[in-house]
Amino acid sequence: MSQYDREAVRRVLDRAAAEGRDSLTAPEGRLVVEAYGIATPGEGLAGSADEAVALAATIGLPVVLKIVSPDILHKTEAGGVLVGLGSAEEIAAGYDTIIANAEAYDAGATIVGVQVQQQLTTGHEVIVGTVTDPTFGKIVAFGLGGVLVEVLKDVTFRLAPADTGTALSMIDGIASAEILRGVRGAEPANREILADLIVRLSDLVTDFPELAEVDLNPVLATAAGATAVDVRILVDPKAAARPEQFTDEEILASMNRIMRPASIAVIGASAETGKIGNSVMRNLVNGGYQGEIYPINPKATEILDRKAYPSIADVPGPVDVAIFAIPARFVPAALEEVGAKGAAGAIMIPSGFGEIGNHELQAEVLGIARRHGVRILGPNIYGYYYTPASMSATFCTPYDVKGGVALSSQSGGIGMAILGFSRSARMGVSAIVGVGNKADIDEDDLLTFFESDPDTQLIAMHLEDLKDGRSFARAAKRVSATKPVLVLKAGRTDQGARAASSHTGALAGNDKVYDDILRQSGVIRAPGLNDLLEYARGIPLLPTPKGENVVIITGAGGSGVLLSDACVDNRLTLMEIPDDLDEAFRRFIPPFGAAGNPIDITGGEPPSTYRNTIALGLSDPRIHALILGYWHTIVTPPMVFAELVADVVEEFRAKGVDKPVVASLAGDVEVEEASEHLYRHGIVAYPYTTEKPVAVLGAKYRWARSAGLLGGQPDGR
Amino acid sequence: MSQYDREAVRRVLDRAAAEGRDSLTAPEGRLVVEAYGIATPGEGLAGSADEAVALAATIGLPVVLKIVSPDILHKTEAGGVLVGLGSAEEIAAGYDTIIANAEAYDAGATIVGVQVQQQLTTGHEVIVGTVTDPTFGKIVAFGLGGVLVEVLKDVTFRLAPADTGTALSMIDGIASAEILRGVRGAEPANREILADLIVRLSDLVTDFPELAEVDLNPVLATAAGATAVDVRILVDPKAAARPEQFTDEEILASMNRIMRPASIAVIGASAETGKIGNSVMRNLVNGGYQGEIYPINPKATEILDRKAYPSIADVPGPVDVAIFAIPARFVPAALEEVGAKGAAGAIMIPSGFGEIGNHELQAEVLGIARRHGVRILGPNIYGYYYTPASMSATFCTPYDVKGGVALSSQSGGIGMAILGFSRSARMGVSAIVGVGNKADIDEDDLLTFFESDPDTQLIAMHLEDLKDGRSFARAAKRVSATKPVLVLKAGRTDQGARAASSHTGALAGNDKVYDDILRQSGVIRAPGLNDLLEYARGIPLLPTPKGENVVIITGAGGSGVLLSDACVDNRLTLMEIPDDLDEAFRRFIPPFGAAGNPIDITGGEPPSTYRNTIALGLSDPRIHALILGYWHTIVTPPMVFAELVADVVEEFRAKGVDKPVVASLAGDVEVEEASEHLYRHGIVAYPYTTEKPVAVLGAKYRWARSAGLLGGQPDGR
Repeated sequence: MSQYDREAVRRVLDRAAAEGRDSLTAPEGRLVVEAYGIATPGEGLAGSADEAVALAATIGLPVVLKIVSPDILHKTEAGGVLVGLGSAEEIAAGYDTIIANAEAYDAGATIVGVQVQQQLTTGHEVIVGTVTDPTFGKIVAFGLGGVLVEVLKDVTFRLAPADTGTALSMIDGIASAEILRGVRGAEPANREILADLIVRLSDLVTDFPELAEVDLNPVLATAAGATAVDVRILVDPKAAARPEQFTDEEILASMNRIMRPASIAVIGASAETGKIGNSVMRNLVNGGYQGEIYPINPKATEILDRKAYPSIADVPGPVDVAIFAIPARFVPAALEEVGAKGAAGAIMIPSGFGEIGNHELQAEVLGIARRHGVRILGPNIYGYYYTPASMSATFCTPYDVKGGVALSSQSGGIGMAILGFSRSARMGVSAIVGVGNKADIDEDDLLTFFESDPDTQLIAMHLEDLKDGRSFARAAKRVSATKPVLVLKAGRTDQGARAASSHTGALAGNDKVYDDILRQSGVIRAPGLNDLLEYARGIPLLPTPKGENVVIITGAGGSGVLLSDACVDNRLTLMEIPDDLDEAFRRFIPPFGAAGNPIDITGGEPPSTYRNTIALGLSDPRIHALILGYWHTIVTPPMVFAELVADVVEEFRAKGVDKPVVASLAGDVEVEEASEHLYRHGIVAYPYTTEKPVAVLGAKYRWARSAGLLGGQPDGR
Repeated sequence: MSQYDREAVRRVLDRAAAEGRDSLTAPEGRLVVEAYGIATPGEGLAGSADEAVALAATIGLPVVLKIVSPDILHKTEAGGVLVGLGSAEEIAAGYDTIIANAEAYDAGATIVGVQVQQQLTTGHEVIVGTVTDPTFGKIVAFGLGGVLVEVLKDVTFRLAPADTGTALSMIDGIASAEILRGVRGAEPANREILADLIVRLSDLVTDFPELAEVDLNPVLATAAGATAVDVRILVDPKAAARPEQFTDEEILASMNRIMRPASIAVIGASAETGKIGNSVMRNLVNGGYQGEIYPINPKATEILDRKAYPSIADVPGPVDVAIFAIPARFVPAALEEVGAKGAAGAIMIPSGFGEIGNHELQAEVLGIARRHGVRILGPNIYGYYYTPASMSATFCTPYDVKGGVALSSQSGGIGMAILGFSRSARMGVSAIVGVGNKADIDEDDLLTFFESDPDTQLIAMHLEDLKDGRSFARAAKRVSATKPVLVLKAGRTDQGARAASSHTGALAGNDKVYDDILRQSGVIRAPGLNDLLEYARGIPLLPTPKGENVVIITGAGGSGVLLSDACVDNRLTLMEIPDDLDEAFRRFIPPFGAAGNPIDITGGEPPSTYRNTIALGLSDPRIHALILGYWHTIVTPPMVFAELVADVVEEFRAKGVDKPVVASLAGDVEVEEASEHLYRHGIVAYPYTTEKPVAVLGAKYRWARSAGLLGGQPDGR
């Protein structure tokens, strides 16, 4: 990679800033990208028709003429572009036409001149661009150019800076990637050169964050090179701003005290049933929290057998966490006292802040917290649970099924759905956290804590937005290498309101940005609430597979077909069974059964056929995961199947062979109990669906791949 | 529409047939499509370089040269195409090059000459083609041409013949449809002219079914016309074959006796527990079937207190249905007797036929059935249920929850899942039918019966293939106008094995054909087994909406966002609330709640707020459907919510106002019981999911639209 000429860029930007401009001219844009080693066509600026003709003679024919005006961004619409001019006469006439069109389009526009540009006649048209995303900051976009990208929105996004591997994953990641590889004898684009261009552009905007948007559209990509034919750059000093950030050490110092407090004060504790301050007290006590609990209430002496204090200042010992159960208007004064007491966290249950438009009060409260070094959870939340400390700091109901799943939700309603689902499924949970308005603590704080938390094995988050998507992506990338991070991103519809001042900007106005960057960060995105919950429940039960070879063993051919469909939908690889293994399976199944994959043991088989084939699937090291399709028969009733599967899986686990096994049970209502039995024994099993068990296995695989545990491309699809 | 010149086509086809050819030459292809009024470029056939030059002079420059050889189908690959030849010298040289290339490509190829063709330089490249699909017969394809259609497979299919409305729906139905409408100042294609071309091509292959495949690729479509630049035609007399068919009257005459038999004989009835012939007898008796039951068993005198007969011939009265519970090898002889007895149906439970490769036995049995006019259900099935006759003719278990849902499955395992799900959900069912190998009775027979069956309101089918997709499509189109037809099509992965002898043929080798044609037929396709079952359960409970205006009323803002996402996913239209209605809603919700849509009544509200807003939603005629998001609170507990919703919905029903209402319940485990209560009262409700209730409503809407009940485009997406 050549050296970057930062000075040249600085000079252009300083001049634009001095002139108060928010865009660069085409020649300036060209200078800026060339300074970072991005090729542009031969060209020059003409101030007259004669100059245009002379320039064309040096550049070579044909040429393109383009209006140069800081006031005209959409040149084509202004009639400011003429292509394919192949003679001096055409060029001279073209110059005059363009000037006339520009004047007609915007009489007041400052016209710098006409750009005379070499017309490249071969290559794939692609678009490479960057924008400053309100959530993620600098992001880089890549897609096919022309009408395609506009109509089909076949474009992909990554955080800038992007390294070469990331840039290559973009080129390979668009739906029409095959076109760039050369279809029907067309010359392929050079992937490495194109990736290098993406890297250079992403470095450029990283070094100069005031480059708010850069469009290279089109870039012509051939086997030998990649040339940015048109460069459009918007500048904005505000685009360089970054949100405030804590270090990981600071985050952990606070979060450890907040999640595992030695003492909790309840501001607004109450003895009166129905009050939030009473529910919180009761849940703390009944939930089994073993630390100190200090009810704070000036009118009470004792609440739930605990001595009450008029103010947190009166509490004798230190306080780690203060739970607020008072109306919003009383919060600032109480928070001053909480801060003075040295609490690490303020759990802000009250509503009445940003969510009803009261942003001033929320800002005031955050200011107080910052002054005292207190972190705020909320406001506008149901509270939080941390089961390793038996802490149910919430006005809902206690939860006590301990396990490795940490969940968070931005919405109280979704939090209640999490609670109900968990209780109904007896899902082992380490934490359930409401983040509400996220005035302060947000998902990346939680990720950083859960990463370090030995009691958490998986993190599942419902979110509607990210305060700082870049910090989240950084944390998720790191955490997801060891613990799966699941996200349900609500609000997936187009953000229609975004002003589209560039092609890339217009393309970035949709959910695809979240989708691509969450994937780049190793996050497993759940398509819906129920999927989030089922993934969270099932993934920790399944061991991490050691490879991509999935085998379906089914008693019902019909289930086998549907399970195969589900494998395709979930990007699972049905193993091609080698001959010796095929023969080994055939020894256990009837002659009219089908080996291959799915392995159809047929419907009327006794338990031993299920047992033998499953044992073979577990024992052969070439097989990495099993999907079972059960068909209810008199010969092998549901509970017999469930017990034998649990037995054989446990038998192999005892021998150190642990593979993910999921099951779909087709049968009469007894399959419900059988599915529960299997689930209790670490086999992800469901009745009446072929989709769910495979979806959970697919999510596990997506995580394993993205964490690099299967040896594939971590960033790939 | 101009007259079609059938004679001209006949002459070309007769000549090709006389010469034993399976493809037409390019000039022949051109003659054939021109005879149906499809425009082609100016052109002629040259036998020498000089002739080529002379022809070009009359046609106009530039021209394209193309090899003409019956042995060379892929001209480009053979180096047999040269484009953009603009002078006599180029044309003469080009002629020689092409001949040389063709000889190098295939030394033995018969070379007829070189086609000299006008080179059209403007227009959108599209592909229009037809193939003879093994399932659906003649289908017509439309897509964007060039590499796009190959890489992105952006193509759509319909049954031929296609009328103008259908053809227009194809043009509007591809993902890149917008490109044809003219993007960024490009000339749009003329939709009507393009649709007319599609209609003409589909008429052509309908009139001449031996036209096995026709590729018009590319067709250049401009604002003024559409020209088929290249025509490739494969002929095959076998492509004209159509499967045997019964008339609807014949189908109904048999099916009425089969589904509502006055008497049933059980061939192989047994007193021995564990035998299929015993289970069938028991289920018939215990299921409450009131007709005559005749056990047939030469070794018994009485089975389950019913007099047994050695042969069906000995049965005193007439027999409508014979259920076979004997091994496959005994079936032919027994079926002869059943046929002689005049039974309408043979329910063929035994396996051992086509599914294990024993196609001869299956064909033999079908032959016997045809001779006697007996229709066969199966073989290789669990049997069938018809609850209006309290008939459980199966070796599974009886089912007695009567209702309007008729289900069928091709697989026994899926049949058992249907049974278990139905029992668990207490789904009201009219019939569950196993079709197994479909030697005879298949889905279109069932559709025809269920259409006429007053006890069936909805038909849900699991299928892996269709014996005769064209008959199914015809029946589904008719039935779905009055009763929803749901299909779970298993085996959705690419049919990789299909030989691709044309572009259209290659494109047709995937699930998209099923998808498009099922949609064209008004079928609602379920993405998975559980969806099929949930749609079947929920759709009959919901009244048909009167319009597209859907309103979300939610106590949890977070649920509102997810419910909105689900609406987008399910193509539901969130109503834009008019000002007066907005104000009316605002009167019931707190000032910090959000009107608009979703209407967020906020979390802490009492039952009256839910009641008032729901009542308003039901009473305002501009609102057509309601989606409720419930958030569990102490103020409005789950059962209070469920009861009030059931009350208010019933209150309005009593007043004649019946709108579809679905609900998502977020809360602790009590929401499960509340959801069941709602479901029992006709409100499709689920806990812990925002997706499912909206998916069921979306399926109802898809059906209502396709049945033309909402006034939209029936064939549209």
